[in-house]
Amino acid sequence: MQLVSYTRLGRTGFGARVEGGIVDLTGRLAAGVITLKQAIEAGLLDTARTFAAGRRAEFTEADIALLPVIPDAGKILCVGLNYETHRAETKRPDAKYPTIFTRFPDTQIAHRQPILKPRVSEHLDYEAELAVVIGRGGRYISEANAMEHVAGYACYNDATIRDWQRHTFQFTPGKNFPSTGAFGPQLVTPEEVGDYTKLKITGRLNGQVMQDATLADLIFPIATLISYCSSFTPLQPGDVILTGTPGGVGDRREPPVFMKRGDVFEVDIPGVGLLVTPIDAEP
Amino acid sequence: MQLVSYTRLGRTGFGARVEGGIVDLTGRLAAGVITLKQAIEAGLLDTARTFAAGRRAEFTEADIALLPVIPDAGKILCVGLNYETHRAETKRPDAKYPTIFTRFPDTQIAHRQPILKPRVSEHLDYEAELAVVIGRGGRYISEANAMEHVAGYACYNDATIRDWQRHTFQFTPGKNFPSTGAFGPQLVTPEEVGDYTKLKITGRLNGQVMQDATLADLIFPIATLISYCSSFTPLQPGDVILTGTPGGVGDRREPPVFMKRGDVFEVDIPGVGLLVTPIDAEP
Repeated sequence: MQLVSYTRLGRTGFGARVEGGIVDLTGRLAAGVITLKQAIEAGLLDTARTFAAGRRAEFTEADIALLPVIPDAGKILCVGLNYETHRAETKRPDAKYPTIFTRFPDTQIAHRQPILKPRVSEHLDYEAELAVVIGRGGRYISEANAMEHVAGYACYNDATIRDWQRHTFQFTPGKNFPSTGAFGPQLVTPEEVGDYTKLKITGRLNGQVMQDATLADLIFPIATLISYCSSFTPLQPGDVILTGTPGGVGDRREPPVFMKRGDVFEVDIPGVGLLVTPIDAEP
Repeated sequence: MQLVSYTRLGRTGFGARVEGGIVDLTGRLAAGVITLKQAIEAGLLDTARTFAAGRRAEFTEADIALLPVIPDAGKILCVGLNYETHRAETKRPDAKYPTIFTRFPDTQIAHRQPILKPRVSEHLDYEAELAVVIGRGGRYISEANAMEHVAGYACYNDATIRDWQRHTFQFTPGKNFPSTGAFGPQLVTPEEVGDYTKLKITGRLNGQVMQDATLADLIFPIATLISYCSSFTPLQPGDVILTGTPGGVGDRREPPVFMKRGDVFEVDIPGVGLLVTPIDAEP
């Protein structure tokens, strides 16, 4: 099943993709459940599947404005240096634990919304990633049970202001500029994705392949990330874990490549989605 | 003016301290304004001052359960290494910019609630800090105007799980365990605090002074912190900036001192508050 968050006729809602378009699920699975996060919290994804099965599309993507998959995510936990190719290009040492930093939800944008180069930097870089959305929350989740806590997967561009990322050794500033976290187009549930380690991930800048890997390359697999994060913070339904980006970021190229107004970046994970974002600049 | 957040008779509310106790402000300044954050958002702190002036106390602290000053803070931006004494003890190099990391709001506890040593670590350390609560939001706030964006000040204990803080070079895990962010007892507004650089800050473990400094010692003063943070993220009313901790943390002592069940830590900032937290351990 593929689920989307959107505004339609001025109202926030969510729905499921079916042949030819979208079936609206807003308020239809349970009273008051008008966002995808609420549906996940209420454990209604199976109900959604049953509801949407066999229904005709009610409208198409042209009738809605997509939102980030989970616009109101409570926690966005980002994993750094989780592909060997990227760790090597950054010259960071091996680590025994995942590198975790955070992104505020107000940095997020939807599929086809522009990533904004801020006026205080020219060092806007891309990071193609697979996002995991938590379905069932928990603390001290074991690796053995971790995958049962996944609601689904989506594409993410963890776009980064590299010079601000390196102002100090903490990444927060470079990872939290507005309109830098592209998240979409849709959430794809685990039964449709199957074994995530079979997924391929490609990042393309203006059509040129810049990042290319498979999810089997993750240094810390998703079960480990969920277990580790849940050891220090209780995970809640709708929380997001960004699993890291492969080698090939613009900043580590010779010469470096940064994104600028008019560029287009695509995060392509066949079976999960194709996330397209134009690049614009802050006025 | 001193403002407190609490639950009373099972309901969330907030009020102002007056002689002999507290005047309830819940729902009294404007319809629907039932939290301190909402009052700040609505620009009602002057109204609160007028409302509380000359009124008699309606109840005392014994009748309420204090909450963290802003339990539902949208963003908690923490500053590392902002006193020379602490920077030197950590052997970190000088930095041109503030070191910024984040804390999730669900890590917060109130005055007299226990800080919890998690079961996965014995390295629970204290960090006495002055917290700044944002009143008026903004982006790209200039240093010259920054202090106009301050709603008030409070004591904070940015308690840290040191071994988890050092799993990698990103601080997130060590700074986000539940029940480690003590925030209270009250918000004190700027006209009552006056020049914050005159404030003294002391951290005491079981009555023994472990940290002792003045706010004039901040490497990056509050106006710089507000301006810098607002350059990468829009600040909102009720957001919190933790200004950093002085030298003397337990982890850098010889031998190291970690907090354990039965200990009591106090953050004492005369003119702002005395924040007392017992230490307990997760079951």
